[in-house]
Amino acid sequence: MRIAIPLYDRFTALDAVGPYEVLSRLPGASVTWLAHEPGVVRTDNGMLGIEAQAAFEDLPDPELVLVPGGTGTNAFLEDERLVGWIRTAHETSDWTTSVCTGSLLLGAAGVLDGLEATTHWLDMDYLGRYGARPTGRRVVEQGKVVTAAGVSSGIDMGLVLAAKIAGPEVAQAIQLGIEYDPQPPFDTGSTDKAPKEIVELVRSVAAARI
Amino acid sequence: MRIAIPLYDRFTALDAVGPYEVLSRLPGASVTWLAHEPGVVRTDNGMLGIEAQAAFEDLPDPELVLVPGGTGTNAFLEDERLVGWIRTAHETSDWTTSVCTGSLLLGAAGVLDGLEATTHWLDMDYLGRYGARPTGRRVVEQGKVVTAAGVSSGIDMGLVLAAKIAGPEVAQAIQLGIEYDPQPPFDTGSTDKAPKEIVELVRSVAAARI
Repeated sequence: MRIAIPLYDRFTALDAVGPYEVLSRLPGASVTWLAHEPGVVRTDNGMLGIEAQAAFEDLPDPELVLVPGGTGTNAFLEDERLVGWIRTAHETSDWTTSVCTGSLLLGAAGVLDGLEATTHWLDMDYLGRYGARPTGRRVVEQGKVVTAAGVSSGIDMGLVLAAKIAGPEVAQAIQLGIEYDPQPPFDTGSTDKAPKEIVELVRSVAAARI
Repeated sequence: MRIAIPLYDRFTALDAVGPYEVLSRLPGASVTWLAHEPGVVRTDNGMLGIEAQAAFEDLPDPELVLVPGGTGTNAFLEDERLVGWIRTAHETSDWTTSVCTGSLLLGAAGVLDGLEATTHWLDMDYLGRYGARPTGRRVVEQGKVVTAAGVSSGIDMGLVLAAKIAGPEVAQAIQLGIEYDPQPPFDTGSTDKAPKEIVELVRSVAAARI
């Protein structure tokens, strides 16, 4: 399966690398990292660079499209090279997927019109702009369009996709291979569960970044 | 806090990027990716390249050392540039940590002698070579030396470290920021939980790779 992950300036690394780590283990998988131009693309904090091997146009017809989010997303919502590539790739893809604010790019490409979708909890209100119906679920499946919530949720989405693509045995083997038996030290991973003051702390840090 | 992540040919991406995504969000954190030479280093499957900004020797005294694992680990257990760098960095570090088979590199550097430690479940038997006492815990804390189990466990370790470095409020806020509220579609992330045939499937795939 030909998997394409489009990168752009200030993407969030785990959005992309979480599902990559799952999906690259599918039998026959090949992953190509794309960008405006081949070369290193840097993350939201500038501290990590991932190499894009090719430009968007070099791989117009991947079977699986995986769009990560990041603080850079907003700057590319009207970027026709990226958004147009998503729109075209979606026409022939088997799966069109996103993690975190990557769904806003799917929305800008017209992919989410009329569909349920999710994104990072901080950005949930923006999904409606694109005719999407925001949901609080962590992984939202709408036919071949699958969106995941913030950052780390891409690992769960990767396993959901792996089961659909290669069957539950393969997905379970991949889960064991990456030893995904999560034991977070706190139970504050969603706004339902985190204390109010922690939610406000994250909101204020995010607001200060913009 | 100056964080150094040493890369080497055929590391596993999520081993490094999981804890990076947590630790890079600590107030005042800076992350430097190191390698034998600056440039792009490729993962175990060759499908992803991360840029190292500097050579090991360029950052001899990070405050936090984070060593990822990978199928490439075995080839570097006697590599004095990498192992020697770990040994030296450990002398002055506040934290010396690993994910997955990265702990074998800590062991080779003499860091684990007499300590409890963990690694990927497939490689647990090798830890004893280095005087370490293997344990099945997901995150193993021994003073400033912290080791994590396979691949995805680095996210849990990152949060444990974040709480120790910056306090539980900051760690909880990071957990909410990356929306780490795991909902794996299966419960097969450890050998205790996975059906026997899945464990054997992973063993046979791993054996075929070596």
